[in-house]
Amino acid sequence: MSTCSITEAEARALLRDYTYLLDLGPLSGWPDCFTETGHYEITTRQNRERGYPLPIMLCDNRAMMFDRVEATEKANIYEPHYYLHILSDSQTIAVSDDAITTRTSFICVRTMLDGSMLLFAAGQYLDEVMREGGQCLFRSKTVVLDHSRVDTLIAIPL
Amino acid sequence: MSTCSITEAEARALLRDYTYLLDLGPLSGWPDCFTETGHYEITTRQNRERGYPLPIMLCDNRAMMFDRVEATEKANIYEPHYYLHILSDSQTIAVSDDAITTRTSFICVRTMLDGSMLLFAAGQYLDEVMREGGQCLFRSKTVVLDHSRVDTLIAIPL
Amino acid sequence: MSTCSITEAEARALLRDYTYLLDLGPLSGWPDCFTETGHYEITTRQNRERGYPLPIMLCDNRAMMFDRVEATEKANIYEPHYYLHILSDSQTIAVSDDAITTRTSFICVRTMLDGSMLLFAAGQYLDEVMREGGQCLFRSKTVVLDHSRVDTLIAIPL
Repeated sequence: MSTCSITEAEARALLRDYTYLLDLGPLSGWPDCFTETGHYEITTRQNRERGYPLPIMLCDNRAMMFDRVEATEKANIYEPHYYLHILSDSQTIAVSDDAITTRTSFICVRTMLDGSMLLFAAGQYLDEVMREGGQCLFRSKTVVLDHSRVDTLIAIPL
Repeated sequence: MSTCSITEAEARALLRDYTYLLDLGPLSGWPDCFTETGHYEITTRQNRERGYPLPIMLCDNRAMMFDRVEATEKANIYEPHYYLHILSDSQTIAVSDDAITTRTSFICVRTMLDGSMLLFAAGQYLDEVMREGGQCLFRSKTVVLDHSRVDTLIAIPL
Repeated sequence: MSTCSITEAEARALLRDYTYLLDLGPLSGWPDCFTETGHYEITTRQNRERGYPLPIMLCDNRAMMFDRVEATEKANIYEPHYYLHILSDSQTIAVSDDAITTRTSFICVRTMLDGSMLLFAAGQYLDEVMREGGQCLFRSKTVVLDHSRVDTLIAIPL
């Protein structure tokens, strides 16, 4: 593989910090994990294997992400549940001069305020990480869920 | 961050070995993961966010931990279940000259002897790690559970 | 510990790549993760603790693994579900001149095509890793499940 200005360790640290941000908040920091024209998408493994192009959720730049955060914060007066992400190891699948692409299996546990706990999501992150303005950021993040049924009211990003 | 006599890798190795000890035993080794005046606490995220000071379980030094181990061993003639901890990445949240503080998401799966498996606990470890007597040890470990309902008979530490 | 020609990082990378191979396929690549006379075994923690020698599944060399892959591919016209493995940290438990033995807690989530998700397996990998033909490979992999009840139709290796 060619030399990249981003190391595997840097890409992994970004992903780690991303999941702690989602789990602990504030959600307003979410768009800042992406480049200005960063791409965020939730899809399913089945969709990808069958070539269905329609994602479950799509943000094609940071401004769209800020809109989503605002909508989420307006819609949810109080936080009705907690998320907890667990990451497995990352596998590097592509390297270019300025970006590294990794695959990372994850699960997300959702806990409702009544105390019930649920395995909420399971799948893989496909992340393209590059540097912009001196920071490691996601140029692209595709969340590929193993399950086709998803809570259609997903408000908080995965 | 300032230079610390404990590296992130050392703190992580301690946490890793701690979880294998809990899962495989012997439980009598548990207090030895802490400094003499080490602090161990299980609480919930909700308690912390609301400022409720009362933890679910508290040991304020190693002697209290030994007492708890003894009580557990007397109460449980045979081991009625298995635990399995899975760790996500650790995030360093504070560094001082002699200690490092990390946050680590984890889940714990409990398997009963009848074969049923359950997502038993999910939350974060807040660990303060320092060196004492040449060994990396927990000066403080706070287990912050995402769920408010907890098996009140928790005998084995998390 | 003595110096080994296999590093912990190499052993870990093999295990990581192994789990992505199982989750994403092709299954035909599975035997290639093992040495020619590699040993693969699924057993339970209870069996091991009680000294029952009978494993749930056993392949004593790579040829047996190829047979199993073929049988699996014939039996399953289409893939009825997805697997997703999540690994915790590895603990090195033995090192020799030419091999490293590690223990790694894992869970495996199974998702059916109807969208239902299940914590399918939880346990530990005991892996002996060595180099053969210039590649890091499993000389031996023992999957020790925490649960005694296992889907007896396990066709895809864990």
